[in-house]
Amino acid sequence: MKKIFIAILGVGTVGKAVIETLQNNQDIITARAGAQIIPKIAIARNIDNKNLSIPLSTDINEALQDKDIEIIVELMGGIELPYSIALQALQHNKAFVTANKAMLAYHRHDLELKSNGIPIGFEASVCGGIPIIRILRDGLCANHILSIRGIMNGTSNYILTQMSEKATNFESALKQAQELGYAEANPSLDINGSDSAHKLLILASLAYGINTKIDDIIVEGIEGLTLEDINFAKESEYEIKLLGIAKKIQNQLELRVHLCMIPKSCMLAKVSGVMNAISVIGDKVGEMLYYGAGAGGNETASSVVSDIIEIARNKVLSDSNIPTQSTSPNKPMLGYAMCEHHNTNQSIKLIRREEISCCYYIRLKVCDKLGVLSNIAHVFATHNISIQSLIQKNPKNLDSQYAYLLLATHICTESQIQQALNELATLQDIIESPFMIRIDNL
Amino acid sequence: MKKIFIAILGVGTVGKAVIETLQNNQDIITARAGAQIIPKIAIARNIDNKNLSIPLSTDINEALQDKDIEIIVELMGGIELPYSIALQALQHNKAFVTANKAMLAYHRHDLELKSNGIPIGFEASVCGGIPIIRILRDGLCANHILSIRGIMNGTSNYILTQMSEKATNFESALKQAQELGYAEANPSLDINGSDSAHKLLILASLAYGINTKIDDIIVEGIEGLTLEDINFAKESEYEIKLLGIAKKIQNQLELRVHLCMIPKSCMLAKVSGVMNAISVIGDKVGEMLYYGAGAGGNETASSVVSDIIEIARNKVLSDSNIPTQSTSPNKPMLGYAMCEHHNTNQSIKLIRREEISCCYYIRLKVCDKLGVLSNIAHVFATHNISIQSLIQKNPKNLDSQYAYLLLATHICTESQIQQALNELATLQDIIESPFMIRIDNL
Repeated sequence: MKKIFIAILGVGTVGKAVIETLQNNQDIITARAGAQIIPKIAIARNIDNKNLSIPLSTDINEALQDKDIEIIVELMGGIELPYSIALQALQHNKAFVTANKAMLAYHRHDLELKSNGIPIGFEASVCGGIPIIRILRDGLCANHILSIRGIMNGTSNYILTQMSEKATNFESALKQAQELGYAEANPSLDINGSDSAHKLLILASLAYGINTKIDDIIVEGIEGLTLEDINFAKESEYEIKLLGIAKKIQNQLELRVHLCMIPKSCMLAKVSGVMNAISVIGDKVGEMLYYGAGAGGNETASSVVSDIIEIARNKVLSDSNIPTQSTSPNKPMLGYAMCEHHNTNQSIKLIRREEISCCYYIRLKVCDKLGVLSNIAHVFATHNISIQSLIQKNPKNLDSQYAYLLLATHICTESQIQQALNELATLQDIIESPFMIRIDNL
Repeated sequence: MKKIFIAILGVGTVGKAVIETLQNNQDIITARAGAQIIPKIAIARNIDNKNLSIPLSTDINEALQDKDIEIIVELMGGIELPYSIALQALQHNKAFVTANKAMLAYHRHDLELKSNGIPIGFEASVCGGIPIIRILRDGLCANHILSIRGIMNGTSNYILTQMSEKATNFESALKQAQELGYAEANPSLDINGSDSAHKLLILASLAYGINTKIDDIIVEGIEGLTLEDINFAKESEYEIKLLGIAKKIQNQLELRVHLCMIPKSCMLAKVSGVMNAISVIGDKVGEMLYYGAGAGGNETASSVVSDIIEIARNKVLSDSNIPTQSTSPNKPMLGYAMCEHHNTNQSIKLIRREEISCCYYIRLKVCDKLGVLSNIAHVFATHNISIQSLIQKNPKNLDSQYAYLLLATHICTESQIQQALNELATLQDIIESPFMIRIDNL
């Protein structure tokens, strides 16, 4: 039986889980790949206390220069270093597998251009164990994808679930997430939306062939959310979720990451705790939902190893068919046959963020006195924004001079709402910066 | 650009939707496949009133003998005829794509053995638009699959949802399903569990490499369910669903299709209406859920066309790499490299149905008189079945001489419960055959 040697770069939680998975599930992996997959070397920044069952080195060239090694598995993190390693792997005619969403958020299209038919696997880069890359590239490839909406960050969803189900405030919920090991010591990428944005950009490339950078899209996190907002949502039959959204309207595309009020009855609203879920609407297939663990060593390893198996399968097949052919056939990395798609002028354009439109929820903390509501109403009227509903709440634990105004607008543009919010922030009787959540009725 | 000609066998709802999808979504399909996919001929039993945009014939040989045609797409239904056509397609070195679950339920392993490396696509055979075949074959291939539980029949789920949410009785709900076009004029395959069983057998082959026949597994439908059962479930925080279940316990496998009480809080319980959903638990990836439309012309076409695109991609790739090679590399149809897996003695064995164990709900309609409960209790005790809960209900619309006993057992085997049910059925004071639903606490 063919033996396929691989190198593991980075032996943190995921790297260790990949080695473990290859060993624990060797029976099924060999049967499915048609080859023995053997981790020959691991590379780490330092070799202390790693306690691995395979040789370990700090020198990356031991992996790149080894002629036996056919697949480089990058699990180090970072952006530029792993990208340069990817390029070196391809130059050495080695397949490349990565779980690195940040690197791909910046370099996925360059990488595809430079791949030269050598397989690149990145299933683990989006939502851990959910095979959403394959689903978009293969499973739904007959469809125009009308939208992708996903809970793509487990830490944020855990915090939102605690706030919604247990009425825990934001700070306590974040602390719980850290204590349970869901959130990093520095959780900013999780809670500021960047992590979700990285994943959304990768999915948008697969669904639309669009090469967008994170700076071009709306990226907001969950900070600033309060239990007042949660309660307003509940009373209006909504749940609040942090969503990554791609939405196609004719040949234009919205891409955005932000908090969203969505109807309680929809499947995404039912996803609680650290779980991830992605809803995809295809023009032929209608709405689908894919639900599962979005992080964790074993869960991510499941996807990393699925890429290794797929590459191994193709190597076995191409070996058996073509003794002289060293590169194995490979699907287009980002789903499209490069030359065909990228030469057309029909490709989809990103909508400027100012032009995106939806309904908005706004929380205003105001002085509870005569004329305030009139001033506020005037601001909305000035910007042609009409109000759909309004609730005034005088919280028990608040000095009676203050009140909350919680309101929902009819549909308007991002540009309108941002101007209105800026103007509201200058009003003397508004005590805190206005807080806004977009409403998505799906 | 390469042109790939295909033939469509059968032009009912799905056949027409496939032709339409290839035409409507030609832009994206061409970009994704890297080739133009052209339906060259359709074959139908008669050529009246088909109103197709492509040539139509009644002679299947016009497809099989045409050297231009590289892919045969079978959407006719039936079992033996499509199987023999599949074999002929393979003999003519043509790839074969089918949506035919019944044919595959009987012949999938023979077909794999005879495929000789020629691609066979069958994504559309299980749960329409949900790409569950690829998910099991590719996405989760690093995992030992611990269980598969699925709502695999939309008609049944629609009926169960109506009963649960609207308190509609079984007959009326079935009639509604027929009026809405969800259920066939003869809905027996849907509601007796056979349709779900066909799908379960296909999934079990992918997950476990097991070649099982429908007669070897428990297959029950939704007939006989009443609103008493629905209410009991609600009061116990359960939902009632028709599930296809594959469950691995060490090297043994349970396969069964039947009504199931499952906790209201689990994702499967939240799937309502005609939708399908499949929960898969992998040893590495944990629980995942895949949700979407399980039937319908466009939804099924989405999967059929995804198979056509995948085969086309590989043809393009193998053409560009190997000018002299006519067959394109192909993944193992049922997920395993044949020789490796099928030669081992470690393959998984089916558990005899009598040995399967779980908790059971039982509805008994009894004469409301002295000693009845004692007689019933005696039967359960005789078979070593202990009762977990019991409710007696005297329905308003029932003559006061009768009552319902609704009870839930502790865990026992299928053999124990069947013997007890048989004995209960002989008791004079039991007015209707006992009705049983298995309880699955997941």
